[in-house]
Amino acid sequence: MSQSSPSLVPFRAVDAIRNKRDAKEHTRQEIEQLVSSYTRGQIPDYQVAAWLMAVVLKGMTRAETAALTEAMLHSGEVLDLSSLPGIKVDKHSTGGVGDKTSLVLAPVAAAGGLLVPMISGRGLGHTGGTLDKLEAIPGFNVNLVLPEFLRVLRKCGCAMIGQTAEIAPADKKLYALRDVTATVESPYLICASIMSKKLAEGIDALVLDVKTGSGAFMKKQEDAAFLAELMVETGQRMGKKMVALLTDMDQPLGRKVGNALEVEECIEVLRGQGPDDLRQLCLDLCGWMFKLGAASASVEEGRQRAAEIIASGRGLEKLREMVRLQGGDARVVDDPALLPQSRHKSDVLSPRDGFVTAIQCEQVGVASMMLGGGREKKEDSIDPAVGLVLHKKFGERVTRGEPLCTIHYNAEARVAAARQMIEASYQIADQASAAVHPLVHGFICGTENEGS
Amino acid sequence: MSQSSPSLVPFRAVDAIRNKRDAKEHTRQEIEQLVSSYTRGQIPDYQVAAWLMAVVLKGMTRAETAALTEAMLHSGEVLDLSSLPGIKVDKHSTGGVGDKTSLVLAPVAAAGGLLVPMISGRGLGHTGGTLDKLEAIPGFNVNLVLPEFLRVLRKCGCAMIGQTAEIAPADKKLYALRDVTATVESPYLICASIMSKKLAEGIDALVLDVKTGSGAFMKKQEDAAFLAELMVETGQRMGKKMVALLTDMDQPLGRKVGNALEVEECIEVLRGQGPDDLRQLCLDLCGWMFKLGAASASVEEGRQRAAEIIASGRGLEKLREMVRLQGGDARVVDDPALLPQSRHKSDVLSPRDGFVTAIQCEQVGVASMMLGGGREKKEDSIDPAVGLVLHKKFGERVTRGEPLCTIHYNAEARVAAARQMIEASYQIADQASAAVHPLVHGFICGTENEGS
Repeated sequence: MSQSSPSLVPFRAVDAIRNKRDAKEHTRQEIEQLVSSYTRGQIPDYQVAAWLMAVVLKGMTRAETAALTEAMLHSGEVLDLSSLPGIKVDKHSTGGVGDKTSLVLAPVAAAGGLLVPMISGRGLGHTGGTLDKLEAIPGFNVNLVLPEFLRVLRKCGCAMIGQTAEIAPADKKLYALRDVTATVESPYLICASIMSKKLAEGIDALVLDVKTGSGAFMKKQEDAAFLAELMVETGQRMGKKMVALLTDMDQPLGRKVGNALEVEECIEVLRGQGPDDLRQLCLDLCGWMFKLGAASASVEEGRQRAAEIIASGRGLEKLREMVRLQGGDARVVDDPALLPQSRHKSDVLSPRDGFVTAIQCEQVGVASMMLGGGREKKEDSIDPAVGLVLHKKFGERVTRGEPLCTIHYNAEARVAAARQMIEASYQIADQASAAVHPLVHGFICGTENEGS
Repeated sequence: MSQSSPSLVPFRAVDAIRNKRDAKEHTRQEIEQLVSSYTRGQIPDYQVAAWLMAVVLKGMTRAETAALTEAMLHSGEVLDLSSLPGIKVDKHSTGGVGDKTSLVLAPVAAAGGLLVPMISGRGLGHTGGTLDKLEAIPGFNVNLVLPEFLRVLRKCGCAMIGQTAEIAPADKKLYALRDVTATVESPYLICASIMSKKLAEGIDALVLDVKTGSGAFMKKQEDAAFLAELMVETGQRMGKKMVALLTDMDQPLGRKVGNALEVEECIEVLRGQGPDDLRQLCLDLCGWMFKLGAASASVEEGRQRAAEIIASGRGLEKLREMVRLQGGDARVVDDPALLPQSRHKSDVLSPRDGFVTAIQCEQVGVASMMLGGGREKKEDSIDPAVGLVLHKKFGERVTRGEPLCTIHYNAEARVAAARQMIEASYQIADQASAAVHPLVHGFICGTENEGS
């Protein structure tokens, strides 16, 4: 990006569109003007729509991506947490099925001395959202105003809310436009959207969990790796400590899918139980949070620290505290049966003997959505009680008639289609697959953290 | 394009945008739905803007281009001239500086037995427009309603008006959007825009004059040739007889630039005088009109027929008739001094002895616009009297102090900048350039007229 001095030529959106169309690099100033004019309603949707399509098809340089992220970040309020002592670290996941680590990480990291100012989103389509899960806890308020959010954060070390109107309004406007103009799928735009919102939290470090596989937005590992690299570099250009873990979403994470069910599973992990994959991934991510937050000398040391916090019950205690401070019924932490329960359960049985050789992960997410556990459209409401418990996962042996999965449901009308989808999503063969599904495919930490 | 049966899936613009973004070929139905929904206001500008940018960057197949042209054509009224005996032929030029052939061609072709239902545009930027030239004739009405247009056409064999609101409304809407979203420069979109309007005239055959060179929209000959080929194929797919001539716009056509001045020069040609390049190009284009309109066995025979019509004075007589029928003062045909005259004239003198080795053609057009002869913005009004008379053109010898050009102007304030621009546009060297500027670079007539 050329370091242009402030130009006397007035900004014309059509020139910016033409530049991107012709694969010319935008100046930082041009991007700032485009984003700020659009946010203020000074340039129309149709010009930005044409520009977005040109970005999708022509791409962006790293400098342009960082400039876009920064312009979107500064379109709204950026939290100033400098008055709070301690290093502020967050984790962000690109989303998947049964992806519930935030509810474990925030309390464990806070119990380990970090500050975790977590601003999350809702689920859409086959993926769940942290806010929906939190709201399965009776009384839990994800709509704290910012001063209240800071109060909880100061008191307990972690707080979890939804995006406020003040945070990155440019992203809200751009995302709504991308959604209807087939311009969602661009790593540059995805990067700027995620990073502008996350950096508005006023954090020092960010651990990214970039999902890849059949249940992720990025089905191909190279696409996920590209996005991960882009986000890490963008964060680093803005002075943040960054790492991205590329993790598996070829099957649901853990065994429970659905809002109350996922809260329950997180509590299991915080009790030192829960499924192995979920527990391991939480330890990995938390290890990185401690490392980037200077609370441990290495990732491995951070991992051990997280395991100790869980073993000592301090993670569970921190969850109890946060739930209480955000108006939720903290008794659920000790008695998950107080979480919303579905009226009915029904098992999906294995049609044969053999081994699970694949689970179409996105279909499992869609099945949960169909039960009412997720949203097809933004306006849809959610049933916190419904969902799925997977008894069998990749590589496991099954016998004919044995339950593969239990459907938790309330509406009889919705169960048949969901059942059909789950049946179709399981692939069972005589022989176990030779394929390996590592939980973590790798990590990208750019130049800053190299050798750590 | 796949021959899909009418689909039961409702049309969603976002799917069409995604298809083009991903370089998938649109079905004819998809294009029809996009154009008709947009014309009816059922899909918003921002979706069409994203689609237009995807078209600019991903292109279109010939089948898609034809489908788009046809959908735009049928968005409005298509003249039905079947009640008029004779073959309907028109000429369309992509525009240039001093490009005034229509005022010669329409009367000559009509005098030769063709019907010429000519619907033209106005000038913008450095190029002139036929309507502006016609309006330099006192009283000439280019805004005839369609029944009146047909009456003139039936009576005199030619009629010349501006685009009515009923003709190709999709193009009006799309063009306005392209103008502000940097999506003008796509041969596919240019082809559909031109051809949809021209074919709405209800013609049987069309001669295209595709300009190339420094004063044309397509500076590069390969771009002009590609557009020409696209338009010829599109017209042929719709059952029209087509030819495109690739002609030179590296210097202005003829010696006069400006509205009344150009009318005057056309009258000169119809009197058997006028500059050689203009006369030759008119004969070439008219030869093709007669050939495609089956009024001559060959282009050469058509050319001779045109020359005879001019020599006999029948072309001039036909112009007189058309001007009268459209409310204009027909005396100008015999006394061009009755055309608007500028109050002042000023010569641009040659700074040295030598030969004209280049004329920056676009700058000459801009100079005429600056005098008031053209429009910078659509809303600008025009001064019919102003313009330029070029005494020296490419290859001609000049001596120091000899007039290169005479500026016809009314506003003193505008003349200095125009003079500067003209001075800069002339390149004069000791030796004549070895470069050749053929008037016609070639012609494209597709498969149908091959060997003719």
